Amino acid sequence: MKKVTNESKKTTKSQKDYQKLFEISKHTHVLQGIAALLDWDQETYMPAGSAGIRSEQLKTMAGIIHREKTSKKFSNALAKLIDIKTGKVLVKDLPKPQMAALKEWRRDYLQDTALPSKFVEEFAKLTSQSILAWRAAKQDNAFSQFAPYLDRIIQMCRKKADLLGYKDHPYDALLDQYEPDMTTKEVTKLFHKLSTNLTPLIKKIHSSKQINDDFLMGDWDKDKQIAFSHRLLDAMGYDLNFGRLDFSAHPFSSASHPTDSRITTRIHPTNLVSNFFVILHEGGHGLYEMGLRKDYYGSPLGQSRSLGIHESQSRWWETRIGQSKPFWQYFLPLLKETFNGRLNSITLEDFYRAVNKVEPSFIRVDADELTYPLHVILRFELEKALIEGSLKTRDIPEAWNAKMKEYLGIVPKTNKEGCLQDVHWSMGGLGYFPTYTLGNVFAASLFEAFAKEHPDWEKRVASGDLAFIKLWLNDKIYQHGRCYSSHELLKNATGKDFSADPYLDYLNKKYSAIYRLK
Amino acid sequence: MKKVTNESKKTTKSQKDYQKLFEISKHTHVLQGIAALLDWDQETYMPAGSAGIRSEQLKTMAGIIHREKTSKKFSNALAKLIDIKTGKVLVKDLPKPQMAALKEWRRDYLQDTALPSKFVEEFAKLTSQSILAWRAAKQDNAFSQFAPYLDRIIQMCRKKADLLGYKDHPYDALLDQYEPDMTTKEVTKLFHKLSTNLTPLIKKIHSSKQINDDFLMGDWDKDKQIAFSHRLLDAMGYDLNFGRLDFSAHPFSSASHPTDSRITTRIHPTNLVSNFFVILHEGGHGLYEMGLRKDYYGSPLGQSRSLGIHESQSRWWETRIGQSKPFWQYFLPLLKETFNGRLNSITLEDFYRAVNKVEPSFIRVDADELTYPLHVILRFELEKALIEGSLKTRDIPEAWNAKMKEYLGIVPKTNKEGCLQDVHWSMGGLGYFPTYTLGNVFAASLFEAFAKEHPDWEKRVASGDLAFIKLWLNDKIYQHGRCYSSHELLKNATGKDFSADPYLDYLNKKYSAIYRLK
Repeated sequence: MKKVTNESKKTTKSQKDYQKLFEISKHTHVLQGIAALLDWDQETYMPAGSAGIRSEQLKTMAGIIHREKTSKKFSNALAKLIDIKTGKVLVKDLPKPQMAALKEWRRDYLQDTALPSKFVEEFAKLTSQSILAWRAAKQDNAFSQFAPYLDRIIQMCRKKADLLGYKDHPYDALLDQYEPDMTTKEVTKLFHKLSTNLTPLIKKIHSSKQINDDFLMGDWDKDKQIAFSHRLLDAMGYDLNFGRLDFSAHPFSSASHPTDSRITTRIHPTNLVSNFFVILHEGGHGLYEMGLRKDYYGSPLGQSRSLGIHESQSRWWETRIGQSKPFWQYFLPLLKETFNGRLNSITLEDFYRAVNKVEPSFIRVDADELTYPLHVILRFELEKALIEGSLKTRDIPEAWNAKMKEYLGIVPKTNKEGCLQDVHWSMGGLGYFPTYTLGNVFAASLFEAFAKEHPDWEKRVASGDLAFIKLWLNDKIYQHGRCYSSHELLKNATGKDFSADPYLDYLNKKYSAIYRLK
Repeated sequence: MKKVTNESKKTTKSQKDYQKLFEISKHTHVLQGIAALLDWDQETYMPAGSAGIRSEQLKTMAGIIHREKTSKKFSNALAKLIDIKTGKVLVKDLPKPQMAALKEWRRDYLQDTALPSKFVEEFAKLTSQSILAWRAAKQDNAFSQFAPYLDRIIQMCRKKADLLGYKDHPYDALLDQYEPDMTTKEVTKLFHKLSTNLTPLIKKIHSSKQINDDFLMGDWDKDKQIAFSHRLLDAMGYDLNFGRLDFSAHPFSSASHPTDSRITTRIHPTNLVSNFFVILHEGGHGLYEMGLRKDYYGSPLGQSRSLGIHESQSRWWETRIGQSKPFWQYFLPLLKETFNGRLNSITLEDFYRAVNKVEPSFIRVDADELTYPLHVILRFELEKALIEGSLKTRDIPEAWNAKMKEYLGIVPKTNKEGCLQDVHWSMGGLGYFPTYTLGNVFAASLFEAFAKEHPDWEKRVASGDLAFIKLWLNDKIYQHGRCYSSHELLKNATGKDFSADPYLDYLNKKYSAIYRLK
């Protein structure tokens, strides 16, 4: 016994080497947290006139971080534990999570070193010009102004895909930056299944009796909205000791450490619930970051898995909890109280149906739960075609409108409301959009497992108890960081392989009931 | 003519070398700006629970900045233009400001390299422990708890003085960190003159009829106080496009660039004007930073001169403008209006006298304009004696109380209200205190020159025009950065040598009138 104790206490060479690598990496993560604060401040409190120096600060931090991530010091430390070329782990006596961390570190290193500095600089220059061009083009509703920039971005994204490397499809490389291990083939199949199932459902809803949500509109006191927002955050278990709620033009979440995970919202000029769903959405992102293990901070084990998993957390709280009936069973009376009885004549059923109203619309960010994925699928299909070269930049407006007609039955009158609406392409973010819908699909699989484990979840939520939800997510998602792939995470949590079925089942059942479809 | 034009356009080797040095230095200044934002956030919006990671972020930035400032890259670039050992400028064809910048860069480099890393780390460790010990000792009113830490701090400050080097007195080296070119001898002489002149004046006031300021006390609406604060900032010319007003426990100003110069305040629970004087004070600091030349940013020419000159700017607005009669001639009616006539029965004379009430008190930060310098002088004299070794740490309380009795005629009942009140010593900041009073002395000299140039200043201020004041300060102080020494700056602005006379004249005249002394 004595011998074992001694041995288990002895630090092995592998452990020492791991610790050294961890320390080097932690330094970089600290710097990334600082850059995150600069970004947060830029969107919340920064004086308008200091945009120039802020962009210089961000550029400086990005440069330092890139140098650290690609330094000899880091790669030498990494190479002691894993063969950077082949990915073969060179040590045997580390615990499983640390073994997984080595592979993630290697992945990051390969991504960070794949693009030559010259390429990165050129791309940064192009996108910073493109954002301005896009903004002006959107303002003027003139796609042709933006087209030459977008054309160059697509060319450079193709080049980027070549530099990053891929097996089957150049889009794989772009997607992989945001959603590791997910392939174009898999997304194509998934999205095809979603669109062929959702389009007829949306058409049926479109021709059925419309829902009244007029009572949600009007002039709602801002202070009361904020007070109610804090009630929601508190119920979710979002601890203001480790986070903040502020305002910004576009809501976002930003974390520099599990103990500093901030969110923002914006108050809608007329819609009462818009801000509340933003709160639940961003709060979901914020909770994920707060739930990452502090002792793993500085390694991939202390980082969120992927954008898709992140989005599964925000959409979980926004749609699966926030747009559920038991949630409002508890919160509607409180909302009525907050607004001094102004909603007293509204029943739970009225309210539940109103916050789940489906209405095909042009703007993605304003879309309801059911039409939202179609907006994303449309963008994915265009991006894929652009990267393949089967769609020319100049033909985007036409292709966009045709898909809008096909999926949602409506056609925007202007490109401003169509293919010019999103900032993502001007930022060079091809590959990003799919993660929005992957998040919903992931969330649905997780929720199925959650509901099985907690068959009384509706009763508990209806009584105002949300604490057990956070605990479940912590157990299944938060604490694991990047220890498992998205697919493994889901499999571990649900016991099932990745599938669109839980998502489609949920949407079908929920909206058939709400719209009383046969 | 043509030849001259060509030559003036040609970039010389010196200019190229200067430019290279400038770029290296600018990178460091950008990093310092980022660290300033981390500090600002820590005091304003940072969630309480993220103090741990923030201190790691600050430590990381400090390490990077120190490495940059002492790098071979920097010293090599500097050594091309100035002999680092002797200070001899090696080039002849640079404009005068750039020549001055070289000397300032060298000064910084010598300071930054004078202390071995080991010493710096040890000092940082000691002071971080000492701050905690001081806080507990203050809480418990137990000087003996803090004494051993302070003792070590004094020992290390003596060592620091030896490492930094000095001509006459070890305290010179400490003072020089905050107020370059000012000597212990000069400060001793100055402070002696101040104390011997001010002590009798304060005694006379103490035995004359007291001023009523009861009407300033009470419960004052916070939103209205803030609205009025913004009116003051607007009148000063503090542009919110390049700054912000926030709240913090201890008011401060923080700038990362002339386009991002922020200030904070706190609302006093009962005193109406306390916050307004904080606004003018911090606004004065903020304006100085906003007024630094943007094209010089990154070089010493784009930095503030010294702590004393900085304080001259804050005290200028707080005392010389804000505590003047013409200022309230304009602003009192607005204040009455803001608080719905609550102060209507108060005359300008009542108000002016109330905001200039003199009352010896124990706490420096709450002291009035006249007794404030005595608090500073007391600290300077103790610091000097401690560094010399003529005062033992354990004897501080006794020495403190004796000086309080001598200068202000009062003795604190507890050390909490006495020698334990300030954080500075626990932070190792010996040498800092004198700059508070130097600021007032500088401000008085500057103001004498200002009033000579603007004999109608009272009339203009009474009409609400403050814009010309900022222009004058910009002309004399802001735009010059560190191009001149404090003494040169004053001489250039006033035509006179540094002297205590304008300050003493001002205080004597002002307070003799207010207290109707013979």
